[in-house]
Amino acid sequence: MIKKLFQRKPQVISQYQEDFYHQPGAIPGTLNIDRDAPPTKIVLIDYNQNKAITENISIPENCTAYLNTESVSWVDVQGLGDRDILQRIGTVFQLHPLVLEDVVNVPERPKIEDYEDQLVIISRMVMPTEKADGFHSEQVSFVLGKNYLLTVQEQPTFDCFDPVRLRIRNNKGIIRKQGADYLAYALLDAIIDGFFPVLEDYGERIEDLEEEVIVNPTRKTLQKIYTIRRELLQLRRAIWPQRSAINALIKDSNELIAEEVRIYLRDCYDHAVQVMDMVETYRELASGLMDVYLSALSNRMNEIMKLLTVFSWIFLPLTFIAGLYGMNFEYMPGVKTPWGFWLCVAAMVAIAICLLLFFRLSGWLESSSTIKDVLGEQKF
Amino acid sequence: MIKKLFQRKPQVISQYQEDFYHQPGAIPGTLNIDRDAPPTKIVLIDYNQNKAITENISIPENCTAYLNTESVSWVDVQGLGDRDILQRIGTVFQLHPLVLEDVVNVPERPKIEDYEDQLVIISRMVMPTEKADGFHSEQVSFVLGKNYLLTVQEQPTFDCFDPVRLRIRNNKGIIRKQGADYLAYALLDAIIDGFFPVLEDYGERIEDLEEEVIVNPTRKTLQKIYTIRRELLQLRRAIWPQRSAINALIKDSNELIAEEVRIYLRDCYDHAVQVMDMVETYRELASGLMDVYLSALSNRMNEIMKLLTVFSWIFLPLTFIAGLYGMNFEYMPGVKTPWGFWLCVAAMVAIAICLLLFFRLSGWLESSSTIKDVLGEQKF
Amino acid sequence: MIKKLFQRKPQVISQYQEDFYHQPGAIPGTLNIDRDAPPTKIVLIDYNQNKAITENISIPENCTAYLNTESVSWVDVQGLGDRDILQRIGTVFQLHPLVLEDVVNVPERPKIEDYEDQLVIISRMVMPTEKADGFHSEQVSFVLGKNYLLTVQEQPTFDCFDPVRLRIRNNKGIIRKQGADYLAYALLDAIIDGFFPVLEDYGERIEDLEEEVIVNPTRKTLQKIYTIRRELLQLRRAIWPQRSAINALIKDSNELIAEEVRIYLRDCYDHAVQVMDMVETYRELASGLMDVYLSALSNRMNEIMKLLTVFSWIFLPLTFIAGLYGMNFEYMPGVKTPWGFWLCVAAMVAIAICLLLFFRLSGWLESSSTIKDVLGEQKF
Amino acid sequence: MIKKLFQRKPQVISQYQEDFYHQPGAIPGTLNIDRDAPPTKIVLIDYNQNKAITENISIPENCTAYLNTESVSWVDVQGLGDRDILQRIGTVFQLHPLVLEDVVNVPERPKIEDYEDQLVIISRMVMPTEKADGFHSEQVSFVLGKNYLLTVQEQPTFDCFDPVRLRIRNNKGIIRKQGADYLAYALLDAIIDGFFPVLEDYGERIEDLEEEVIVNPTRKTLQKIYTIRRELLQLRRAIWPQRSAINALIKDSNELIAEEVRIYLRDCYDHAVQVMDMVETYRELASGLMDVYLSALSNRMNEIMKLLTVFSWIFLPLTFIAGLYGMNFEYMPGVKTPWGFWLCVAAMVAIAICLLLFFRLSGWLESSSTIKDVLGEQKF
Amino acid sequence: MIKKLFQRKPQVISQYQEDFYHQPGAIPGTLNIDRDAPPTKIVLIDYNQNKAITENISIPENCTAYLNTESVSWVDVQGLGDRDILQRIGTVFQLHPLVLEDVVNVPERPKIEDYEDQLVIISRMVMPTEKADGFHSEQVSFVLGKNYLLTVQEQPTFDCFDPVRLRIRNNKGIIRKQGADYLAYALLDAIIDGFFPVLEDYGERIEDLEEEVIVNPTRKTLQKIYTIRRELLQLRRAIWPQRSAINALIKDSNELIAEEVRIYLRDCYDHAVQVMDMVETYRELASGLMDVYLSALSNRMNEIMKLLTVFSWIFLPLTFIAGLYGMNFEYMPGVKTPWGFWLCVAAMVAIAICLLLFFRLSGWLESSSTIKDVLGEQKF
Repeated sequence: MIKKLFQRKPQVISQYQEDFYHQPGAIPGTLNIDRDAPPTKIVLIDYNQNKAITENISIPENCTAYLNTESVSWVDVQGLGDRDILQRIGTVFQLHPLVLEDVVNVPERPKIEDYEDQLVIISRMVMPTEKADGFHSEQVSFVLGKNYLLTVQEQPTFDCFDPVRLRIRNNKGIIRKQGADYLAYALLDAIIDGFFPVLEDYGERIEDLEEEVIVNPTRKTLQKIYTIRRELLQLRRAIWPQRSAINALIKDSNELIAEEVRIYLRDCYDHAVQVMDMVETYRELASGLMDVYLSALSNRMNEIMKLLTVFSWIFLPLTFIAGLYGMNFEYMPGVKTPWGFWLCVAAMVAIAICLLLFFRLSGWLESSSTIKDVLGEQKF
Repeated sequence: MIKKLFQRKPQVISQYQEDFYHQPGAIPGTLNIDRDAPPTKIVLIDYNQNKAITENISIPENCTAYLNTESVSWVDVQGLGDRDILQRIGTVFQLHPLVLEDVVNVPERPKIEDYEDQLVIISRMVMPTEKADGFHSEQVSFVLGKNYLLTVQEQPTFDCFDPVRLRIRNNKGIIRKQGADYLAYALLDAIIDGFFPVLEDYGERIEDLEEEVIVNPTRKTLQKIYTIRRELLQLRRAIWPQRSAINALIKDSNELIAEEVRIYLRDCYDHAVQVMDMVETYRELASGLMDVYLSALSNRMNEIMKLLTVFSWIFLPLTFIAGLYGMNFEYMPGVKTPWGFWLCVAAMVAIAICLLLFFRLSGWLESSSTIKDVLGEQKF
Repeated sequence: MIKKLFQRKPQVISQYQEDFYHQPGAIPGTLNIDRDAPPTKIVLIDYNQNKAITENISIPENCTAYLNTESVSWVDVQGLGDRDILQRIGTVFQLHPLVLEDVVNVPERPKIEDYEDQLVIISRMVMPTEKADGFHSEQVSFVLGKNYLLTVQEQPTFDCFDPVRLRIRNNKGIIRKQGADYLAYALLDAIIDGFFPVLEDYGERIEDLEEEVIVNPTRKTLQKIYTIRRELLQLRRAIWPQRSAINALIKDSNELIAEEVRIYLRDCYDHAVQVMDMVETYRELASGLMDVYLSALSNRMNEIMKLLTVFSWIFLPLTFIAGLYGMNFEYMPGVKTPWGFWLCVAAMVAIAICLLLFFRLSGWLESSSTIKDVLGEQKF
Repeated sequence: MIKKLFQRKPQVISQYQEDFYHQPGAIPGTLNIDRDAPPTKIVLIDYNQNKAITENISIPENCTAYLNTESVSWVDVQGLGDRDILQRIGTVFQLHPLVLEDVVNVPERPKIEDYEDQLVIISRMVMPTEKADGFHSEQVSFVLGKNYLLTVQEQPTFDCFDPVRLRIRNNKGIIRKQGADYLAYALLDAIIDGFFPVLEDYGERIEDLEEEVIVNPTRKTLQKIYTIRRELLQLRRAIWPQRSAINALIKDSNELIAEEVRIYLRDCYDHAVQVMDMVETYRELASGLMDVYLSALSNRMNEIMKLLTVFSWIFLPLTFIAGLYGMNFEYMPGVKTPWGFWLCVAAMVAIAICLLLFFRLSGWLESSSTIKDVLGEQKF
Repeated sequence: MIKKLFQRKPQVISQYQEDFYHQPGAIPGTLNIDRDAPPTKIVLIDYNQNKAITENISIPENCTAYLNTESVSWVDVQGLGDRDILQRIGTVFQLHPLVLEDVVNVPERPKIEDYEDQLVIISRMVMPTEKADGFHSEQVSFVLGKNYLLTVQEQPTFDCFDPVRLRIRNNKGIIRKQGADYLAYALLDAIIDGFFPVLEDYGERIEDLEEEVIVNPTRKTLQKIYTIRRELLQLRRAIWPQRSAINALIKDSNELIAEEVRIYLRDCYDHAVQVMDMVETYRELASGLMDVYLSALSNRMNEIMKLLTVFSWIFLPLTFIAGLYGMNFEYMPGVKTPWGFWLCVAAMVAIAICLLLFFRLSGWLESSSTIKDVLGEQKF
């Protein structure tokens, strides 16, 4: 019945499995194409202060024309299913084989690599799932060059870049006046800000658990706490190196990033630190919850035992008295009298009431005024 | 009945919720105005060695006149409810859009940012609540320029700056002889010192819990320990980056801060370290309390079980003997004699006394001389 | 019956034991030959862009001819059983006595040592075992010189270098165009990538345990968790210094490693960091599992106690009533009537039903709809 | 009865309370005089190679004469109860207002401050109390100038400087030949060495607890462990910053400290590290004791439960048999025979003996050869 | 009976006690002679490439002749019982008073001190005891000068330097060709390698405990785990600063240590790191064992409770039925028939069998096929 207690979200499983795709001894630069990876789509947005063109591109070599203009070209590659197209993109952008490997053989650890005329940023994007358990996570790689930005996403279905696309299309803010470095910042910022809604979910789940763990701890609570801890561990693995990467970006002396954009990156870095802070806080809360859970179980055990003990204390003497008069001695006080039985029963009732009063006065039953009440709290 | 075990203080909730206000992909510099934020008030204090003027300002542009004089102008903005006024303040003080965003889109992580002719300090102010549970917390941002200091507070109702205002008005200490940098120090120092009364509350609550957890651990104790741990985690999140920020301020080479004021800031830094120290100490104590709580529960369990066991040991043999003479054999020793019953009862009493003596001598009942006593300690 | 609960894999035991082979006060450079070590085999692969020769060598001095040519010579020594041959290899390659000691007296901690004309890299190779419990682990030492690479493996039976040998033989990738430094990188990379399949095993074992620990925690589960923790500790000891060694290699200014190869080493370093990350994640998960296990035991205890308590509550009153009518009073209500017994039994049944209903309504039996069900989940 | 479980030592309480004396917004340099602080006493020791004068001084200005001579002047201020005198001392020694505040508004965190012609050292002195529980702790501040040393102690009653005073008076060692910097070292060294007797007490208390926690864990043991952990936390707060301060002193380039004295300070630093080491070791031991305590409780619980179970197993069958023959069937085997009762009793005894033998053989009662023995160990 | 559960080894106790020998305020350079310290012995080994002389020296001044020659002089002082001789040694070697104090007032923390013409190394030597519990530990101090090495040991009885003495006497290895710095290295290396046999003991003890803690956890197991944790803490305190000291030695620019010897010291450093690694690994294993122990206790508790519960479930209904027919109603079904009793007994047997079958089928008794079996595993 409870066969599948830890039902992992599909994404999470896939992440685990893909972790192991590095084949020992493979030629560096080998591309591992996942059989289930979606086909590769290319969307190009070319813009400057005056215009903004969006174009779906099927032949990678077509990008070259845009790359040679002064306008900013954002080539957005979505889906890692087509080895041939990916390799041709590598050729068009003159990527080092190791860069292409990092971009395609997901997951890589977030980092930046500086190849003089190109800056490579490996980043991880998270999004809440609809059911508010777990989170969707995918790798986004940036290759920033002079006047162009290549981004590679694992999945074409969903990303958090739409607001940026809108800002380009509608010429909102200063994005159209800036270069490719500002675009890279804008997208990185969108990725970091995308952690906040996910964290909001965890905040709510932890708040719910805080109540559940005290009021009504069950086996399912245990499983929820463990799952949250595991997922926060994954979130941490996603944000921690990202923070370092952004910091390296700010410190990096590469001329591809203008001084002015570094000020914006500092802001982005602050948000990454804030995310990390919250992840650590949630992790500590979740780990505290485990302690609370264990204590709550002990607490409940104590109450069950108290009920058992109180009951035993009441019935053991009564049963003993009954046993006493069940003995087959011929001469026992009162057995022959008509009121003997009733006297005996009355004595028993008196003893029971005395014991109950005693328990009540000594505080055993205090916090749980009626047994019904205690039980009502203890429903599993 | 115990529906709302973790009743968060309103402030704390709001902090949690606001944590997520960064909208992914939003234009940097976008101001998020909270619907419930109080309207924006501006109070200007302009002073030099000779005079000190306090003025409520409704039109931000009116500040300009004061800013151009040599006297120190402290513009105190209270409440973040009015987008228009806030933006006009940004214009008057020539704030970078990111600075305005940091100042308005609370909460930001405490930090300093150096914009050559302006030093931006994001800080967090805490105050004890009346009911001595939790604490009130709000962001205070400083923009320090030549001859002026802009402070932005979330709430107009309450702050810990009154003693500083008094010192300016009454020309106490050296504050009127110093520049805007000294004013910034004085306010920061007031903020850091404001942590001490809050910590005092926690010191007392932990002291109370230390007694409660040994003498009378209940489910409510558990909840209190957890709540304290969570709140201390928040305090830590507030003070930790603040310490770094003050340190950065001391090290910063910006000329806006005079050498002499840095000596004062070093003192302020020492206090911040002291606060951090105490927060960490309390955190360790609170975490130790959780262990004590669990042990105290086990202890109590042991005592309940001992009571049950002692009772069972006493009544099991007696009931057995009664059962023995309840058997329907025709020939049983003494059943026909008039003194048989009394002999049997006497034997039972003797056995019970022997067992009790045995328990007492062997130490089971030693520490709890009478059962009443044990129970009295165990009231829940 | 359960004599050998912790059945260590032979390799693991040997690792433990060999840890202690440093004899206090021994002359530095003393070679400790393990009695059970396999005999020493030497395989030489000599290649340049045009040719690739593989040769089994029995007389170490025969290598000298190859070392003097411009082509890259990879001398692969397998097995540490023959002191004489090992010492002659030391002479042929002009190894410092301490280097020879490090290479032969396994296990050493992974590290690099820079001897100007030679770079010594001590590394640890892991491989999954067939039975998917534990892992095979052996030391691989590299001595990188101008145009040659000496590798020394503990065991001749198995290594993860075959793909590299194939690439050399079949001239795949750029390996034949590069020098000995690239070869060293390729082998190091194969070793680091060899950690991933081992980690995959642990990922699966932890996933299995996650289910087992909630659904059906037994004594064996405890042992499994502990074993995984211990083995992950060993994995960590293997990868942690390796990461530092590769980092030192990248930073090292020795001219034996070309600038271009350092870019590849950076990639290898990233993988080492990824391995470390995963080991740490697994360690945290495994340590979380221990908490879950303890909680699950408490949970089960609570359910056992509840069953005992419910049963006692039902039978204690019934037995008491039976005892009541077992008393030998002459006048008891209904004892003489023919329907008395049945009335009494009916009353008992009614009480039992009421109690059961009461327990059910108050939620004690809710989550475990039938007792059968509860027990079915609790099979040990 | 156990109202005051955590009876804090008065000193400790006062430390807690004083922690909060920083009043938010107070003018920097404000002196907080504790109402209960003892009156201020000044003792001056003036010495050079030839003479050593000790003088009680009531008018601070009288020190000036001594300060202007070449001989070393040690002005020892004891007790912080007299605001006027303290302020006049500040004037005599030309102390920065913040220095006077640090010196008077105890407790400050141990630290050093470098004011070019003065070195300020804030330090914390601990001493064992007579009752060997807790420790006495007070702040000692040093102001080191050219040819003079000002020390300020909280309490006049007791300090650990007497051996140093004796060495000055009796011209023992090299102290009379050295300057004020050596005197400062000698006093600091006395303070650090003063931690050792306190630690010795903790070593003994932990040793006692180690035995108690296994042999006889009671509620009081729990409280003792917690108290030790809390006090060690305070000790750590006292020694940790002190170590950093001494290190800063060694590194500081101020000319007030001669090269030769730095060698002595290095020794003092080593002792501080040793103290810290021991505090950390004791903290780990104390934290391990908590685990042991919890395990010991579980152990005891197991033994109580075993006793209950064994007893129940023995009496349940016997009582059942008695109940069997208590049934009112007319035809039961042996009820009419004279030896029936005795046969039945014999059978019962046989069953009881068999069960006891069975328990003994199967090892349940092995480690606790007689029940008396078990109970004897378990006295609470 | 179990009075002395934690029987500390004499050495360990003495270490604890000696920790406190720093008397507050004592003159720096004061020698504390332990009353029980063995008398001081001096052994001189003087060697160069051609000869090696061993001489027992009773008058310290006699060393001077050897110190002035070019040959290497190793003066080995054993035992700290003779203040006069120790002070004369200090004079002969021109030791700084603080050095003599460090060397004599054991225990000091391992460290190096650089006095230009002398290098002082404080080190700690450990050796396994015969009974394989705990370890013998003593301080060894080195004073390395030009052409001489002074070593000071606490105890004359036993050290791990014999192999080195043998190498000198028999001219094995390169030791006779090297200077005093190489001798210092050789001895340090012997000390570090001396940790390995001690660690081997701990490896075995932990392995034994791993089995014991699952199969048969008793109170003694708890004590063993705690003792191992405490002793590993001491080992860690011994090796941690030693590693730093050796590292400082390698980095130190003092000319007393030749470049060539630094290569050897690097090897020694690697071994120290390996020792530290293993100590940390064992500490984590030991701390994991505590968790396992607690879980094993809970597990056992569950099984005891299950046995109690099963037994109760079986006998409660049977006893109830017996009670039913023990009631004194005149009309009860079957009481008058001759087969009534047997029918009733048969019903009881049937119920008991059904319950047993039910428990078995539902898995409660599965893992413990016979009760005998369960008990057999649970012997305490």
